[in-house]
Amino acid sequence: MTCDYIQLANSGIQQLKPYEPGKPIDELERELGVSDIVKLASNENPLGASHKALHALKHMHELHLYPDGATFSLKAALAEKLNVASNQLTLGNGSNDVLDLIARAYLQEGDEAIFSEYAFAVYPIVTLACNARPVQVPSNLFGHDLAAMAEAVTERTRVIFVANPNNPTGTWFNAHALDEFLSRIPERVIVVLDEAYFEYVEESHYPNGIDRLGQYPNLIVTRTFSKIYGLAGLRVGYGVSSPQIADVLNRVRQPFNVNTPAQVAAEAALQDDDHLENSRSENTSGLVQIAEGLQALHLEQIPSVANFIAFDCGQPAMPVYEGLLREGVIVRPLGGYGMPNHLRVTIGTSPENERFLLALKKVLKDLADG
Amino acid sequence: MTCDYIQLANSGIQQLKPYEPGKPIDELERELGVSDIVKLASNENPLGASHKALHALKHMHELHLYPDGATFSLKAALAEKLNVASNQLTLGNGSNDVLDLIARAYLQEGDEAIFSEYAFAVYPIVTLACNARPVQVPSNLFGHDLAAMAEAVTERTRVIFVANPNNPTGTWFNAHALDEFLSRIPERVIVVLDEAYFEYVEESHYPNGIDRLGQYPNLIVTRTFSKIYGLAGLRVGYGVSSPQIADVLNRVRQPFNVNTPAQVAAEAALQDDDHLENSRSENTSGLVQIAEGLQALHLEQIPSVANFIAFDCGQPAMPVYEGLLREGVIVRPLGGYGMPNHLRVTIGTSPENERFLLALKKVLKDLADG
Repeated sequence: MTCDYIQLANSGIQQLKPYEPGKPIDELERELGVSDIVKLASNENPLGASHKALHALKHMHELHLYPDGATFSLKAALAEKLNVASNQLTLGNGSNDVLDLIARAYLQEGDEAIFSEYAFAVYPIVTLACNARPVQVPSNLFGHDLAAMAEAVTERTRVIFVANPNNPTGTWFNAHALDEFLSRIPERVIVVLDEAYFEYVEESHYPNGIDRLGQYPNLIVTRTFSKIYGLAGLRVGYGVSSPQIADVLNRVRQPFNVNTPAQVAAEAALQDDDHLENSRSENTSGLVQIAEGLQALHLEQIPSVANFIAFDCGQPAMPVYEGLLREGVIVRPLGGYGMPNHLRVTIGTSPENERFLLALKKVLKDLADG
Repeated sequence: MTCDYIQLANSGIQQLKPYEPGKPIDELERELGVSDIVKLASNENPLGASHKALHALKHMHELHLYPDGATFSLKAALAEKLNVASNQLTLGNGSNDVLDLIARAYLQEGDEAIFSEYAFAVYPIVTLACNARPVQVPSNLFGHDLAAMAEAVTERTRVIFVANPNNPTGTWFNAHALDEFLSRIPERVIVVLDEAYFEYVEESHYPNGIDRLGQYPNLIVTRTFSKIYGLAGLRVGYGVSSPQIADVLNRVRQPFNVNTPAQVAAEAALQDDDHLENSRSENTSGLVQIAEGLQALHLEQIPSVANFIAFDCGQPAMPVYEGLLREGVIVRPLGGYGMPNHLRVTIGTSPENERFLLALKKVLKDLADG
């Protein structure tokens, strides 16, 4: 072989390290021979999917036919729920896909995309995949420094990613801060407001990005069915924006990026307000349970309004992570985010949270005892 | 609004016209108020999905968890079936996704991608989406002119797309022609051999691209579960290549591009050889049935080895297409392919083929009678 096909690839892709998903349960079972595993690694809904969604999937048919490429029915349901027009929506294979579409539409070699330190790993990935330059702005106490992000805009900036709340830190900013930030960004720069955890937040000054679309035509709000809706296995996310931006994103979108089961389940899940409400209240009490448990262990944590908490192990986190794995509890190490002493734990059910806290206590004690 | 967000988008995307899917059945029902519709527009398997796949879907669980991003189990089953290593595989949301990954990895502004006239519409779409230049080589009797395609390679060529058999024409080339072509392409140029309809072909000199991978490290073979496997609604396709190219494609791939139902169904479908065999033989007899029917109507057709036939209406095809719609039969107009007098019909079950032929006869008579 005379050619190196990695060297031949586009420059951004050569630098790309693929996103590392949380460890799947069956992989851990294979590796360690343990069973009865609790996965608190990927911010999934511990209550599972809505029964309405599961019921709809049981009655699905015609899987040999292509999905509806226009996602007519799901878009209509979403538009009604969100009080927007169908032509403001872009459906994606998870909101990851929508983030990717935005990068593909508006970033290429020579362009810059801005995001915060300690923000979602997918922002630099989709930027590099378009051969553009990722610009990371230092965080403020693990949250976004919105003023510094606005100041980082240059002639070459075409996209800014902000997350509210932010993953993996759980931090958030209020309506006033968002409005001040948006007013400072030139209209030629696309602002992506990632609200993957929107439905979990119960703070009274927490802003709804969709309410700002009329005022800011450069704004795209992204949300997902993978979190509170409990459909991570099906891959449905969406962007809401001006019709013009949605038109552009839909040109880049693969025509069948959301498959038939995903369309069917998402539409049914939208109708299940009870499940949403239960999931939110279970999460709110779980946040308190884990926050108090970490406090009792004298571990510093980042205050979170989402369905996870990042905490400082006070020592390198990997031995703690590995100890938890041996106890059958999967959490997420954050070394890849430049937080080598932190772990992120997803809020589970009350017994799952209890199991995590007991396992953590044991692992920390074992490590302290050497 | 001071900005035009279409003008702000990358240049290739501004030129992009999204892929037009075949008309969905329920859309036709809504528009024309007809029912009992036969869809022969999208080369789907008229026998439906394998029962093994449908059974596996019924027993799927844990949809609130992310899919296995490494598609461990499906890759292992595919690797065994194809007699390749798992690290030669790239799974996609349909083979459309794999074609897109190839373009993203190896094409950018200033680069050229070559494909044939009358070839799959997705080749120019994925090329333009990467801001690269599509180079279309004139066909030879509706098939690929492989010699002319090899001659079209320039310093800027980075990818060549060839399809065997070709969609929408159904033409094919033999092992000798493929080998001669591959030997003429420089190793620095990626050759994409699209075998979406591979399993339908029964010609003795039809080549298996995967057998050539050892000799040609620049070769990628793509296949799909959307056609003979009857899983178009689930979106699973794959590329087979050298491990190095697969490494590159997997860097660009979204980590969860193939969702849980898709992984489960595809793996089960792979085990159902009977369904594959039935689908192939039903198609072979349907090809004869439709070919003879078109001949009886004195319509010129392009000889096909796939699960569809393109035929010349001897007049502008759109009135014929619309007449068929009113009869409840959906086929595919090929005006977008520069074939304004042709229609493409998918091979259905024997009664579906009969219904199509009767409807076509009636429509042509009505048009002749004015």
